[in-house]
Amino acid sequence: MLFIVGFGAGGENGMTLEARQALEKSDVIAGYTVYAELLKSIFPHKEYFVTPMRKEKERCIWAIETAKQNKTVSLVCSGDSGVYGMASLVLELAKGEDLEIKIIPGVTAACSGAAVLGAPLSHDFAVISLSDLLTPWELIEKRIQYAAMGDFVICIYNPSSKKRADYLRRASEIVLQYQSPDTVCGYVRNIGRDGEEKRILSLKQLQEAHLDMFTTVYIGNSQTTVMDGRMVTPRGYLL
Amino acid sequence: MLFIVGFGAGGENGMTLEARQALEKSDVIAGYTVYAELLKSIFPHKEYFVTPMRKEKERCIWAIETAKQNKTVSLVCSGDSGVYGMASLVLELAKGEDLEIKIIPGVTAACSGAAVLGAPLSHDFAVISLSDLLTPWELIEKRIQYAAMGDFVICIYNPSSKKRADYLRRASEIVLQYQSPDTVCGYVRNIGRDGEEKRILSLKQLQEAHLDMFTTVYIGNSQTTVMDGRMVTPRGYLL
Repeated sequence: MLFIVGFGAGGENGMTLEARQALEKSDVIAGYTVYAELLKSIFPHKEYFVTPMRKEKERCIWAIETAKQNKTVSLVCSGDSGVYGMASLVLELAKGEDLEIKIIPGVTAACSGAAVLGAPLSHDFAVISLSDLLTPWELIEKRIQYAAMGDFVICIYNPSSKKRADYLRRASEIVLQYQSPDTVCGYVRNIGRDGEEKRILSLKQLQEAHLDMFTTVYIGNSQTTVMDGRMVTPRGYLL
Repeated sequence: MLFIVGFGAGGENGMTLEARQALEKSDVIAGYTVYAELLKSIFPHKEYFVTPMRKEKERCIWAIETAKQNKTVSLVCSGDSGVYGMASLVLELAKGEDLEIKIIPGVTAACSGAAVLGAPLSHDFAVISLSDLLTPWELIEKRIQYAAMGDFVICIYNPSSKKRADYLRRASEIVLQYQSPDTVCGYVRNIGRDGEEKRILSLKQLQEAHLDMFTTVYIGNSQTTVMDGRMVTPRGYLL
């Protein structure tokens, strides 16, 4: 049995009962180093299989092979198991295998970060990753452009890394072609973890911000506003 | 104290610990009739304030006024509290009030439905509601068009209602201008509840489908495929 578990932002509080039960039931928990450390504080007596970043494929193959040996394995993802998570990779690698796989969803960073900022995602939104490890940058740019043209709220995952220091600036510049420099934006770093930080800022300010990969970014639509220090996209009820 | 609680798909299993604790702590739980009934089976001894659909504003005002009288109130939303939830409306209505408001995120239908189908949301996606109660249909059409042009996976909330029987067909027709009729689509009805139903179908078939408002719809991107009966959007790891 292989569970692919989205465990939420990181703390015990953000985990669903279903995720918790899968982890409790598992013989071994497989995951990225940082996430395994978070889970060890909640489930200290479990066996862990830990691999660093960019070893996702090896981790998934290990999880599949171990589960095939009649072990119960949980492959863990922060946030949701589907949204930029391991679910698709496991399903690809396990294609045709006689193995029971259960995908357990979790609260993705778009939603947990939004709750920290206020309610930025109360209307139609697009989720875009700025990581070009697996996606051509041209396609990412095209998606940012169409999301801005459609006046979607845009939620950005993986806004930056050492190698991609200027990607958020380039993304902001694309949006600036279609939206006002005063567009309300926000970001949250380390959502639900120690050292959580948030900031609400303008699109013009976002262009100059230096953020890391543990940050989730929100670019409001034309209606997004600030109320009592919170980022709010009205749904339209009060119109 | 006012909690705005996203309680997930409906069952106890899909609720986070944080959501559960807020509900346990509350003097009264306010929500839409159907969701209150779901919660009564988990928290039978709570006081409930129940209003039907389209009474969202009245419900929020009641929750704010009651919380101001030193009561702990949870205003509940299925899925997430932000994504087409009550969080933005409450923040608008409570603007300037001296009231502690905590927004508790939950697993939104995009993620819980995706886990039922497989892994359709493993790459950039757009979330669009087809409800034109609060949004002009022209804007909804524009967003569908740009999402299709950007080759986003599209997740559709509120695909239909009695008054809007042909909206999903119209949405499908827009996507068909940019994507193949064989594009892999899927839908899930009553996610995580009794009577859960799912189906994977082509965009051409989706055009003719008759769905209700308890259904979440996924239109794949150009890379989305079917593997062992599951809808999968590859992230690109195996390329």
